[in-house]
Amino acid sequence: MILGTVVGTVVAERRADQIEAAKYLLIDQCLQNGTGKNNFLVALDMIGAGPGEVVLLSQGSAARQTDLTDNKPMDAIIVGIIDQIDEQGTVVYKK
Amino acid sequence: MILGTVVGTVVAERRADQIEAAKYLLIDQCLQNGTGKNNFLVALDMIGAGPGEVVLLSQGSAARQTDLTDNKPMDAIIVGIIDQIDEQGTVVYKK
Amino acid sequence: MILGTVVGTVVAERRADQIEAAKYLLIDQCLQNGTGKNNFLVALDMIGAGPGEVVLLSQGSAARQTDLTDNKPMDAIIVGIIDQIDEQGTVVYKK
Amino acid sequence: MILGTVVGTVVAERRADQIEAAKYLLIDQCLQNGTGKNNFLVALDMIGAGPGEVVLLSQGSAARQTDLTDNKPMDAIIVGIIDQIDEQGTVVYKK
Amino acid sequence: MILGTVVGTVVAERRADQIEAAKYLLIDQCLQNGTGKNNFLVALDMIGAGPGEVVLLSQGSAARQTDLTDNKPMDAIIVGIIDQIDEQGTVVYKK
Repeated sequence: MILGTVVGTVVAERRADQIEAAKYLLIDQCLQNGTGKNNFLVALDMIGAGPGEVVLLSQGSAARQTDLTDNKPMDAIIVGIIDQIDEQGTVVYKK
Repeated sequence: MILGTVVGTVVAERRADQIEAAKYLLIDQCLQNGTGKNNFLVALDMIGAGPGEVVLLSQGSAARQTDLTDNKPMDAIIVGIIDQIDEQGTVVYKK
Repeated sequence: MILGTVVGTVVAERRADQIEAAKYLLIDQCLQNGTGKNNFLVALDMIGAGPGEVVLLSQGSAARQTDLTDNKPMDAIIVGIIDQIDEQGTVVYKK
Repeated sequence: MILGTVVGTVVAERRADQIEAAKYLLIDQCLQNGTGKNNFLVALDMIGAGPGEVVLLSQGSAARQTDLTDNKPMDAIIVGIIDQIDEQGTVVYKK
Repeated sequence: MILGTVVGTVVAERRADQIEAAKYLLIDQCLQNGTGKNNFLVALDMIGAGPGEVVLLSQGSAARQTDLTDNKPMDAIIVGIIDQIDEQGTVVYKK
């Protein structure tokens, strides 16, 4: 999985995802301390991630392993909202 | 998912995709404000994306999760035509 | 999908692919005008692509969605021989 | 598969992974001699990898091929704790 | 598929791969003439590839399409030992 920060929202009325009221968020991939990598992707959110939150993302077919996305053409979802990351015993990120 | 701009069309008569009248579009991956990355791929379109439109793309096995592409050797499809993207509260792209 | 040019052939007698007389081609990924990227991969061909032809490639599990490659350990196949590509209304590649 | 060093832990209470007490580790991809690449990912651990250990990681749908992760939205797991790596006949890493 | 050279072996006693006596090889991805790219991965071998041999590798779910790796958390296997590669009519690699 990768880490990313929620930086915006993406709206598309004409879609082929067959998901009612799909909530697409603009994500900037980030380092473990939350620093953005300027490397953006769009992910589906189903756990209510908010702007600025650091999230855990799954990509590929893993993105279809939830009730909402089962058999849906999605390849990136948010699977967690990060509370804390420590590196070498030091807390480098705290929500 | 990633963002891209429709920049052209790709025609191939001899194919192994088993899709009648498949519509292949040339896509330049782009930033959230629509700026092209000069990083091209070919995607199947089934929602009528037009030249210059910013679209949402799914890749990998996600591309097979539609009636048209089920069990077909496709690894990239257009799943949405973007209306608006906002970043940090500012609209950075509007159709 | 990606674009590539057929630049050579790859022969391997000892294989684990369980495909009779598998035809492996050396592909240089290319731009939409056919210019090579010096970024090579090996793909299975089942539609008779010839040297110098620009082809459409599918990768990942998409490569298994044909009768020949079903359940076979292949991750890249040629799914089309390109006839023409246009970009911004200009023909940038013609077979 | 790729090699990585366990460099930290990642905690997320609000998750969509449906895995009880999931243990997420922060991994720095590394060379065969254990040198870090400064290229981080998060992987699920189920074999008790400890800080500083060099591990073998599987990504993509392979990450779902265990009892714990079957049908779960995970795309990276630790599949081995490395004991020794030799390169050209020389031991370049030893636990 | 990609090309690589067998450059070493990887030993891990504590594993989650459920494969008896799994043989992991250290691979340096290489060009069609066998020149190493200094870009390493670990692949499972089941066809007896030896040190220095140039091999054909499949990655992702393709790696599970053999009896040995079916339903196993593997994402890279050796699917062929290369005998010869020609590029633009010239033999650039011969075993």
